[in-house]
Amino acid sequence: MQLQRLVVEPGQLQNGRLLLASSQQHYLQRVLRLGEDDRFIVMDGLGHAWLATFVQSSDALVQAELLEPITTHTELPIRVTLVAALPKGNGFDDVVRQATELGVDQILPVMSDRTLLHPSAQKVERWQRIANEAAEQSERLCVPRLNAPISFSKYLQQESNNLQTPDVLMQKYLCIARGASHHLLDRLQVSIADAASPSIVIAIGPEGGWTDAEVEQAIAVGYQPVSLGARILRAVTAPLVALSLIAAVYEKRVESRKG
Amino acid sequence: MQLQRLVVEPGQLQNGRLLLASSQQHYLQRVLRLGEDDRFIVMDGLGHAWLATFVQSSDALVQAELLEPITTHTELPIRVTLVAALPKGNGFDDVVRQATELGVDQILPVMSDRTLLHPSAQKVERWQRIANEAAEQSERLCVPRLNAPISFSKYLQQESNNLQTPDVLMQKYLCIARGASHHLLDRLQVSIADAASPSIVIAIGPEGGWTDAEVEQAIAVGYQPVSLGARILRAVTAPLVALSLIAAVYEKRVESRKG
Repeated sequence: MQLQRLVVEPGQLQNGRLLLASSQQHYLQRVLRLGEDDRFIVMDGLGHAWLATFVQSSDALVQAELLEPITTHTELPIRVTLVAALPKGNGFDDVVRQATELGVDQILPVMSDRTLLHPSAQKVERWQRIANEAAEQSERLCVPRLNAPISFSKYLQQESNNLQTPDVLMQKYLCIARGASHHLLDRLQVSIADAASPSIVIAIGPEGGWTDAEVEQAIAVGYQPVSLGARILRAVTAPLVALSLIAAVYEKRVESRKG
Repeated sequence: MQLQRLVVEPGQLQNGRLLLASSQQHYLQRVLRLGEDDRFIVMDGLGHAWLATFVQSSDALVQAELLEPITTHTELPIRVTLVAALPKGNGFDDVVRQATELGVDQILPVMSDRTLLHPSAQKVERWQRIANEAAEQSERLCVPRLNAPISFSKYLQQESNNLQTPDVLMQKYLCIARGASHHLLDRLQVSIADAASPSIVIAIGPEGGWTDAEVEQAIAVGYQPVSLGARILRAVTAPLVALSLIAAVYEKRVESRKG
């Protein structure tokens, strides 16, 4: 049987116990209908998880006891940051949900010169909630962090200021829809052979693609242009293709070593 | 500028001319607001496309003239059939749309023992319409064919009857969510090195996975169990991961040969 999962704030965990917020209590006991003796999984979103059960508590607070830590291997062996231009409508909900399933570590929504949407602050909270749910469903121990949206060119400017730090060794890829770039899969396999940095940033443009100025600016701060294949992908599909390739190349290597 | 695209029935094409159905005429002239001198792209869904323009015609019928054939390379160098268990709700709409973007040739919706949904005949028409639209958007020349849903075990029985035909050489993969199967990417790279059949069938299970009986039956007719990675993917995400890997492995090889 699959145990139910709950993402909590690290601060809720104290001395092997979990202090449940009333909304969490409602969720566990009323929505999921867990009884006093049922077990469930508590995740702190930072890679730790425990088997837990409710405990009798002297006051009105409902607490859970953390019974034992859970060690699974659902996290990627690398840190992947997705920089993605916001698509039209609610398409970014799907991007967040599916990117989480595919093991992403951080999601940075950007506005490109061709982005029409300027999202409200509530959007970030909504996306973070979707990431939490998707991490629970896909049995991940880490929850991807959602950054507030920023213009792509401002983001690249910050990157350029960081060029002095060791992060300069990150693998940075800029996906280009048309043109003769090398395929991302090619680049990843070369990087693995070279034992390149285990941190990857992958940037996916809007419908209509990055502008020439954006491409030039990105290349100037160390991005390599790559292709995701011959067909035109929608802005909600391209991130999944890129993340599927990254996860497969890096997980496969780990599996081959085991075997 | 991007030209508008229209998928037509091969029978509408006669002697270098296209006889437009009234719904197509409405779409081109009223919805897309194309004028008499505008050009657009006509696709027959079988891999052929032409640049076209309206012509004056003596009768009430509106016709278009096919000016010149278009030769692009947006089709995969292999034939890929997606056998996918129907997910809950309208999730299959997304699967059809994104699988089309990723170059699939044929989509076969199946009901597994764990599938609750039994779709109506109208659903197949709806999915075919989605595939047509997605093929236009992603600038493909071929439109994937949608089969009517069938139970997975009945489908496997038909496969078993076909074992005497040359199709037995097809690469057949069954994606398994939990377990210690080889990664699909591994299998694909071995197949390429072996110059295996350029036809691939990839079968993706429902939420909850295939039953043991279904897995055994599939293996008996030549399916290889494969993994898509350590995380649990939803039924709408798994097909995209599998198709991303197939497209990348086969297109990359073609690109490397060119270079």
